[in-house]
Amino acid sequence: MSLAVGVVGGTGHTGGELCRLLLGHPEVGSISPTTRQEGSFAEHHPNLAGSGLTFSTAEELAERAEELDVIYFCTPSGQAMRQARHYAEHGAKVVDLSADFRFADPGAYERAYGEPHADPELLAEAVYGVTELNRDDVAKSRLVANPGCYAITAILALAPLLRAGLVDLTTPLAVHAVNGTSGAGNAPKKALMHAEAFGSMLAYSLEGHRHGPELENVLEPIARQPVVVDMNTAHGNFIRGIHLQANATLSSPADRDQLLELYREAYGDGHNGEYFVLVNSLPKRGKINEKQYELYPSLSSVVGSNFCHIGLDVDTRRDVAKVVAVTDNLVKGAAGSAIQNMNTMLGLPEQTGLRTYAL
Amino acid sequence: MSLAVGVVGGTGHTGGELCRLLLGHPEVGSISPTTRQEGSFAEHHPNLAGSGLTFSTAEELAERAEELDVIYFCTPSGQAMRQARHYAEHGAKVVDLSADFRFADPGAYERAYGEPHADPELLAEAVYGVTELNRDDVAKSRLVANPGCYAITAILALAPLLRAGLVDLTTPLAVHAVNGTSGAGNAPKKALMHAEAFGSMLAYSLEGHRHGPELENVLEPIARQPVVVDMNTAHGNFIRGIHLQANATLSSPADRDQLLELYREAYGDGHNGEYFVLVNSLPKRGKINEKQYELYPSLSSVVGSNFCHIGLDVDTRRDVAKVVAVTDNLVKGAAGSAIQNMNTMLGLPEQTGLRTYAL
Amino acid sequence: MSLAVGVVGGTGHTGGELCRLLLGHPEVGSISPTTRQEGSFAEHHPNLAGSGLTFSTAEELAERAEELDVIYFCTPSGQAMRQARHYAEHGAKVVDLSADFRFADPGAYERAYGEPHADPELLAEAVYGVTELNRDDVAKSRLVANPGCYAITAILALAPLLRAGLVDLTTPLAVHAVNGTSGAGNAPKKALMHAEAFGSMLAYSLEGHRHGPELENVLEPIARQPVVVDMNTAHGNFIRGIHLQANATLSSPADRDQLLELYREAYGDGHNGEYFVLVNSLPKRGKINEKQYELYPSLSSVVGSNFCHIGLDVDTRRDVAKVVAVTDNLVKGAAGSAIQNMNTMLGLPEQTGLRTYAL
Amino acid sequence: MSLAVGVVGGTGHTGGELCRLLLGHPEVGSISPTTRQEGSFAEHHPNLAGSGLTFSTAEELAERAEELDVIYFCTPSGQAMRQARHYAEHGAKVVDLSADFRFADPGAYERAYGEPHADPELLAEAVYGVTELNRDDVAKSRLVANPGCYAITAILALAPLLRAGLVDLTTPLAVHAVNGTSGAGNAPKKALMHAEAFGSMLAYSLEGHRHGPELENVLEPIARQPVVVDMNTAHGNFIRGIHLQANATLSSPADRDQLLELYREAYGDGHNGEYFVLVNSLPKRGKINEKQYELYPSLSSVVGSNFCHIGLDVDTRRDVAKVVAVTDNLVKGAAGSAIQNMNTMLGLPEQTGLRTYAL
Repeated sequence: MSLAVGVVGGTGHTGGELCRLLLGHPEVGSISPTTRQEGSFAEHHPNLAGSGLTFSTAEELAERAEELDVIYFCTPSGQAMRQARHYAEHGAKVVDLSADFRFADPGAYERAYGEPHADPELLAEAVYGVTELNRDDVAKSRLVANPGCYAITAILALAPLLRAGLVDLTTPLAVHAVNGTSGAGNAPKKALMHAEAFGSMLAYSLEGHRHGPELENVLEPIARQPVVVDMNTAHGNFIRGIHLQANATLSSPADRDQLLELYREAYGDGHNGEYFVLVNSLPKRGKINEKQYELYPSLSSVVGSNFCHIGLDVDTRRDVAKVVAVTDNLVKGAAGSAIQNMNTMLGLPEQTGLRTYAL
Repeated sequence: MSLAVGVVGGTGHTGGELCRLLLGHPEVGSISPTTRQEGSFAEHHPNLAGSGLTFSTAEELAERAEELDVIYFCTPSGQAMRQARHYAEHGAKVVDLSADFRFADPGAYERAYGEPHADPELLAEAVYGVTELNRDDVAKSRLVANPGCYAITAILALAPLLRAGLVDLTTPLAVHAVNGTSGAGNAPKKALMHAEAFGSMLAYSLEGHRHGPELENVLEPIARQPVVVDMNTAHGNFIRGIHLQANATLSSPADRDQLLELYREAYGDGHNGEYFVLVNSLPKRGKINEKQYELYPSLSSVVGSNFCHIGLDVDTRRDVAKVVAVTDNLVKGAAGSAIQNMNTMLGLPEQTGLRTYAL
Repeated sequence: MSLAVGVVGGTGHTGGELCRLLLGHPEVGSISPTTRQEGSFAEHHPNLAGSGLTFSTAEELAERAEELDVIYFCTPSGQAMRQARHYAEHGAKVVDLSADFRFADPGAYERAYGEPHADPELLAEAVYGVTELNRDDVAKSRLVANPGCYAITAILALAPLLRAGLVDLTTPLAVHAVNGTSGAGNAPKKALMHAEAFGSMLAYSLEGHRHGPELENVLEPIARQPVVVDMNTAHGNFIRGIHLQANATLSSPADRDQLLELYREAYGDGHNGEYFVLVNSLPKRGKINEKQYELYPSLSSVVGSNFCHIGLDVDTRRDVAKVVAVTDNLVKGAAGSAIQNMNTMLGLPEQTGLRTYAL
Repeated sequence: MSLAVGVVGGTGHTGGELCRLLLGHPEVGSISPTTRQEGSFAEHHPNLAGSGLTFSTAEELAERAEELDVIYFCTPSGQAMRQARHYAEHGAKVVDLSADFRFADPGAYERAYGEPHADPELLAEAVYGVTELNRDDVAKSRLVANPGCYAITAILALAPLLRAGLVDLTTPLAVHAVNGTSGAGNAPKKALMHAEAFGSMLAYSLEGHRHGPELENVLEPIARQPVVVDMNTAHGNFIRGIHLQANATLSSPADRDQLLELYREAYGDGHNGEYFVLVNSLPKRGKINEKQYELYPSLSSVVGSNFCHIGLDVDTRRDVAKVVAVTDNLVKGAAGSAIQNMNTMLGLPEQTGLRTYAL
């Protein structure tokens, strides 16, 4: 295979990361990123100097739609829903990394993003692309909505518990996630200058983050009942990665070992199962309050990779399960999942081009 | 005044920080830190090179008890409860930065720390030292239990809400706190080497952190009803500081402005009120999901200082108040509070020696 | 004393830091910072929330010149040389933190900064303010040119060697300095966003940094012969601090102990001598290439303080002295020195308001 | 091809990184790392959880020598020189990442490492493996000495200048390099704890780093005359990467454009030439002292990759060339070069398994 791939919106963190991963994908023959900005590809992405990639405009790319096997959108919301149909009708598989096709209900989109959806018909056939959850649907689709970075991390953290019916959902699911500063986009802002943000931590959007409703929409069919998510977000002192903790009240007592067993059943043990989801199941060696730093995954274990590492514990005093999931917000949370979805749509092995481990 | 001050346990992060602050205290005439380790004071605390401080042993200091006006304990749990009486009986004011005197009930201490309390009689007269809450009791005491770093930050975050009776306490208070690596002690551990922890984030003690029960004990008298705290802790990629978010379900709807008004009443506006607690009350300029990074305090705004900055928001969809409080875990969370308590015990202005702002 | 102090240019890193330190100065009664920008003082300097400081414009401050005891300039080059006379003639002591009065020769200023000097007459009476070197001149002056951050650090590192005539100056002095990102100003630039600069390092101005000629001008009278400086600069992954290494070819062999003795004679041992300059003179315990990380000062030992820590070694194979000096670029490298100079000009103890140790 | 590869010393940073890269190498069929320590492979390298790799002992591996196609040594000095012959005689290609085979002269080894070389005969046939410089010799060898991380970075920075005879070597070459904390090994040391080293910078081994003589040995044949290197090393606030600046006095005036042309001739433009060495040749747009942060490579542009990015400038006032080279100390500085050498020894395309770009 020698795939021709387009990337609409190639200047941002996500577009750059997608190009980086596509450059290492053995079945990709050409990569065509677009930009609206000045400056060469290597000036925007100095880590990709030497790759030979060059920018065109979105308009130039659109004229070559029939040459493309796959088109990715790494655009702000509102663009993919206007441009995706053009590529789909020329036969390209579409993976949209923006939020435009994430809500099955056009009304939900409008409530979250403040304008009516521009292509409800196309929206109706979009598949929400968490490969681990709905591999078959992804495989059959021509348009995949790539999940939000917080959403996919939370879904992987919570799905086994919800599917097993172990959660008392009269209490909200509490999701607390700390993201790298690459998650804030690359427009210069004073609060995100190195001299401001270094060594610091900063909460944002506490009144309600858009990934909250996205998450509820996805989790309800898994839980087979209404789900309320309490979503809390902050930026930490790192560029990449999401450290997410999801707390769920158990409907009946269970201990750490029982839940680990459940997660191992869901995701497999090591690579026998879901390749990209690893459950950290080291046994406890001590008593409460001996800090065993190896019990839960550290963020750095996944940065640069498409892996999601999961660890968990139970506050047995109150029967609350606490699940920690770590991902790279630009890989599993964006570009890596997008390629995993593409692989699935094209019938390639899911891991193609994504086997790199974290540094 | 020219106070003679002893510091039992002067090699760790807390002991070093206490000496640093005492060196800048205008009423302190002599500082006597102790150690059990090899190495000069300046080798253990190169930032304090030139201070002229030298170590003695705890035994040598104990023999000079009657010369001391104030004694601080920066020791692991189990030591202060055995040594405090000696100093108190020689007339020194005692500030214990360990956990030994934090639980009014000796049984609660035993449950949390695994051994019986060694001096229940002295424990009975200990005052829990959050100066902002119980200034009068601190002023009259000869033995203050300095609060845990998570506890004091959470108390300042939650007290106004609880005191006003605005919280539905049938739902637990959710406290999510990220601490610097100085909070992990200074014994070399692989997980806390720079080459492991840099750029990472790592949860710990999720099954139940000791500051959870400590916090419940303190908050219940404020709330005048039982309080359950869901305590969640992690280390972030910084040396100092606690970024704490406390979520509380409101018993009736209230908006951000109403709660800000409540907090300004509690802590004052600017420095007209509690000197060390500042409420960030910038108005919102945009709609949901425009990231306004100035709405909540950033951690770096307090590092190195005795200040606690507080900001808040309301998830109006679910009537949950979200309060962010940031402190320096070694200053307001330990050594700074300890000096604030000492000032209060001695009738000095509370801010003496503590006026430094964050870098 | 209750000094009235003005700060022209109070929005940048240096102006903010100067205000922070002045707030802790016991003899300062009022602080009047100016700005040309929107936003309150606390919005620009959230670490100083609660201080009560407010901005006026430079024009408003100029009208109140006769009320001021001291005026500081934290302005871009070109402003102080036009405004300083006004304040000086109204009786205020002037400390200029910009480069306007650093070159005794107006021609040298023009070569380095590209425009003629606006007030050569006032320039003629300016004193270059490294208090440790020319305390008496500073004490008598009404206008002090505060040194550049690299310059003062390099001067303290090299002065004892040069004064003792131990350097073969036919070889250039090599100065390699790594500065924090606060040294790059606070205008948002993509290269200095957290998501770009975190975990990285970036050289700049290698063709010749302006502090090179400044340094040569100052070192020549000390060395009593022409001096050539090879100046090399970079930004490291921290906000504050300069880690500077100066290499000087020895005119005759000397070992580490001999040079340490020379430095201790110059700066004193501990605080018996220059209060703000500390020489790290731990003996070597091992042989070459056993990394003894305590031999040279670490940057973090001075951040937040007005101290300069110095360590050194000799490459005996080639008779090259290697001196490491660390400072906080915003304190000893700017605002702290400026206050030290003010104290000296006013006859106050030099350490007044500057006794804080590093975190 | 399905290569069987052994890694003696698989617990350290280098051994782990080598395994990481080998896991992504399409021609590698099996990887056998050894250890002397407790703990599973995934506990030592949590980023490689799921890889299925397991440890054996060095003795167990030695017994299987005839099964191996390639053996790597990631051991402290003194081990490879005792064990390499065993594997070589069983037909395995040997790549030694330690210093044991880096000095052609056994006496030089003894001077630098303090004990006689254990296998001078094997040493005589070892090839110093900078593929870019001596590709043909590497291709023919069965034992390659992988260069030190500082050495290879400096060699790539300086070789074009030296080969062209443009350097006045009566002045030493000045090499100033800042390395990540992964370069300090993984034995816990207080100075390298996160709570000590974060946000700091720390020089070490200033009296003479072992890579200095190694570098002189390699550069002399290139320069065809004696070379003296002034080697200066420090640790910066990052885990991985070397930011190295090499200053060389020009034998006759040359400007930046001329030298860039020379480097482009040596390494090619983009990927037409040396795949892993990229020269940053953006033109200057401004005058001196306008900080153009894009002129020289930033460290983060190569971290995680096998690339070396090079930028340069000329201090025309003194005719000094300043070359900045950045590499990942664990990849191009160790494991990546080792695989590049293996590829070359086996006749594989050099880039096999090494095409990943930096994050």
